Amino acid sequence: MTAPEQLDREDALSGFRDRFVGATSDLVYFDGNSLGRPLRVTGERLARFVEAEWGDRLIRGWDEGWLDLPRTIGEELGRVCLGAAPGQTIIGDSTTVLLYKLMRAAAAARPGRREIVLDRDNFPTDRYVAAGVAEELGLVLRWIDVDPAAGVTSEQVAAAVGRDTALVVVSHVAYRSAWIADLPEITRISHDAGALVLADLCHSAGAVPVELDDWDVDLAVGCTYKYLNGGPGSPAFGYVAERLLDELVQPIRGWMGAAEPFLMGPDYAPARGIRRLLSGTPPVLGMLAIQDMLALLAEAGIDAVRAKSVALTAYAVELADELLGAAGVGLASPRDPARRGGHVTLIHPRMREVTAALWKRDVIPDYRDPDGLRIGLSPLSTSFTEVARGIDLVREELER
Amino acid sequence: MTAPEQLDREDALSGFRDRFVGATSDLVYFDGNSLGRPLRVTGERLARFVEAEWGDRLIRGWDEGWLDLPRTIGEELGRVCLGAAPGQTIIGDSTTVLLYKLMRAAAAARPGRREIVLDRDNFPTDRYVAAGVAEELGLVLRWIDVDPAAGVTSEQVAAAVGRDTALVVVSHVAYRSAWIADLPEITRISHDAGALVLADLCHSAGAVPVELDDWDVDLAVGCTYKYLNGGPGSPAFGYVAERLLDELVQPIRGWMGAAEPFLMGPDYAPARGIRRLLSGTPPVLGMLAIQDMLALLAEAGIDAVRAKSVALTAYAVELADELLGAAGVGLASPRDPARRGGHVTLIHPRMREVTAALWKRDVIPDYRDPDGLRIGLSPLSTSFTEVARGIDLVREELER
Repeated sequence: MTAPEQLDREDALSGFRDRFVGATSDLVYFDGNSLGRPLRVTGERLARFVEAEWGDRLIRGWDEGWLDLPRTIGEELGRVCLGAAPGQTIIGDSTTVLLYKLMRAAAAARPGRREIVLDRDNFPTDRYVAAGVAEELGLVLRWIDVDPAAGVTSEQVAAAVGRDTALVVVSHVAYRSAWIADLPEITRISHDAGALVLADLCHSAGAVPVELDDWDVDLAVGCTYKYLNGGPGSPAFGYVAERLLDELVQPIRGWMGAAEPFLMGPDYAPARGIRRLLSGTPPVLGMLAIQDMLALLAEAGIDAVRAKSVALTAYAVELADELLGAAGVGLASPRDPARRGGHVTLIHPRMREVTAALWKRDVIPDYRDPDGLRIGLSPLSTSFTEVARGIDLVREELER
Repeated sequence: MTAPEQLDREDALSGFRDRFVGATSDLVYFDGNSLGRPLRVTGERLARFVEAEWGDRLIRGWDEGWLDLPRTIGEELGRVCLGAAPGQTIIGDSTTVLLYKLMRAAAAARPGRREIVLDRDNFPTDRYVAAGVAEELGLVLRWIDVDPAAGVTSEQVAAAVGRDTALVVVSHVAYRSAWIADLPEITRISHDAGALVLADLCHSAGAVPVELDDWDVDLAVGCTYKYLNGGPGSPAFGYVAERLLDELVQPIRGWMGAAEPFLMGPDYAPARGIRRLLSGTPPVLGMLAIQDMLALLAEAGIDAVRAKSVALTAYAVELADELLGAAGVGLASPRDPARRGGHVTLIHPRMREVTAALWKRDVIPDYRDPDGLRIGLSPLSTSFTEVARGIDLVREELER
C-alpha cells in the first residue's frame, strides 16, 4: 500500500486544506458529508456582512442585492456543481420544506396518476414527506426494496413505474451506502412511463458531479451544509427544469414567491420563473457561507474534486480491507468507484460503541443504524494521512 | 413642544443606542420594524461561532446544544416578550412556512368546520397562505373589512365567527396602521364559538408586550428580523399552547420533528411537545443574533421598551400634526397609544415620491400602498432627535 504521506504529496488539491478552519489540526474528521468545515474566510465574511451590509445598508440591502441572493447563489451552484443553466436553481427553506413543496407540485402536475415511487432506504425525511403528501392527496406509495450495501437500480425503477406513477423520488447518492443511482437512466425510464423525477442531491452536491439539464431531471432538492459548507442548518436548494417552471405551483404561498411581492394585492399569483419556489423572506445570513465554498469549488473544478473524492474513498476501502477485514468488518458501500459517492460505510456488530470510543479520541465518524460506521470524506478538507490515521484507530478500538 | 434633545436626555433607555451598529450615525432609520439594526456584539458572535463552535466542535455541536437552540431561544423569547411558559415556543422556518403549518394543523383540529375568518388588511402572506390552505382543504375564507387607519375589532370578530368557524387569523399589530387588535377579547369570542385563534405577532414581538398564556391564545407566529434584530431573513417563531400540543399535527414531516430523529425508522411519528413543529435541520447560523437582542430586551425590560415605544410614536404623531398637517398629511394609525403599536403611518398622495427623495437624503422610512409613509421606531435604537430630524425632512420634501 502506498504511504498516506506520499498520496498527500501527490495530491494536487492538498493546498486547499489550509483554507478550512481546523483542517490541519490533529482531529480526524470523517463527517464532512454531514457538516462541512467552515472556510477560514467565512467568519470574517459574516462579521463584515453584519457591519457593512446589514448594519450600514439596513433595509436598503434588500434592493441592493439581498433579494436576488436566492437566485444568484442558486445559479452559481447550478453552474459549478449541478449542470443547471441559469434560472432553475434557488436557495431557501430547509430540504424538508422544499421536498414537500416539490412533491406536492409534482403530484398536482400529473393529475389522475396515483402513485409515488421511492425506495425503502431513502433518507427518512424523503420517506416521511412522501408519506405525508400521499396521505394528503389520496395517493399511494410504491416501495422499492433495495440492497442496503447498494441502492436503487434502474431495473428496479423500470419494474415499479407505470401509467399510474406521478412521481419517482430518488436519492442520487444514498445516505448510508453512498450508492450512486443511475439518474440519467432512471429519469429516461420514468419519463417513458409519463412520470416526473425528483432527485435528492444532499449527498451529491459539491462532491459528485451532477448534470441535471443533460440528464433531463425534472426536480431536485439538496442541502448546503454538507459538501457545500454552508454551516449548521444552512438553507436548502431547489431545482425545477425550465420546461416545468410555468406549470408547477407549490402550495406555500408567501409574498416572496408572488409575482409582485410589494404590490401586496388581494390575491396571490405565483412569480414567473424559479422565484415561485420561494415562500418567506430569504434567509440571507444563513446563505452567505455557501458563496465561499462555491468559489473554492469553482477554483478547484468539480471534476478534480470528484477525482480526489474517489481516491480518498478508494484508499479508505483499501485500508479497511487490509486492517479491518480480520476483525470481520464488512463494506456496506459499492466497491465500484463509479457507483460510490463521497463516503464509505463499514459494518460490524460493535460499530455503535466503536463510534462512541472514537469520538473520545477526536476521530469523528457518524454512526448509522444498523451497525454502520460512516466515513464521510470532504474532498477539499481531508487528507490521506487523516484517512489512514482514522482507520487505524478503528482497528485499535475493534481490537480492544 | 418639548425639544427632542431634552426628551433624549430624559430617556432612561437612551444608553442602549450605543449597543447597535450605526445607531448614533447621522442616518435617520425609520424602518426598524422592517429590519432591526444589528447589535455591536452580533458580528463578533457570528465570527466566534464559526471559529470556536462550527469549526472546532463540528458535528459534535449538534449534541452539545445546537439541536436544542430552536427550543432554548424560543423559550427565552417566550419569557422575555410573549408571556409564554416554557415548552410552547420554537424557532424555525420562515413566517410563511409556519403560518402554513399552523393553519393546516388548526383546520385539521376542528374537523367539520368550514371557515377561516380573517381581515382584508392582514399582511399579504397571511391572506395568501389562508387562501391556499382553504383551497387545499375545501374551506371558505370569511373576510372582515376593516378601517385602513385602524384594524379588526372584537365586535367585527364577534359578528363573523360562528359554529362553522375553524380558525380566526389575526395580526396583533397591523402591518400598515399599527392598530393593536384586542387579542384577549378576540380570543375569548372565538373560543366561545368553538374556534381556534392564530395570532400573527410579526409587528409585536420585541416592541409590544404580549401575554399569550394569560390571553389563552391558541397559536402564534412571528418573525425575528424586525424588533428582535435577528438579521435579514432570520427564522420565524411559532407558539402552540400547551393544551393543544398533543393534538396538533403539522403537515411537513421532517426528521427533526419526528419523535426519534436518529432512529430513522420506517414511519413518521411526531415528537411530543413543541419540537413537532419542526421539519428540517434547525437554521443555527440564522438564529444566533436573536439571542443578543433577547438579552438586551431582558436587560431593559419589555414594559420599559413599550413605554419608550409609546413615547416615540406619540412624539412622531405630535410632530406630524404640527409640521405636516398644513401640507395635508393625515394619520393612518390610531391616535390612542393604547391601540397603537411601534410604528406610525402618515398618508399623503405624494408619499411614494417623498419616500424616494428621503432615501437619497439618508432618511429611511418604508412606503406602503396606498400613499403611506411608514415610520417604524425600534425603541432601543431610535432617538427622539432622530424622529424630529426625520419628520422635518418629510416636511422639507413635501414643501418642494
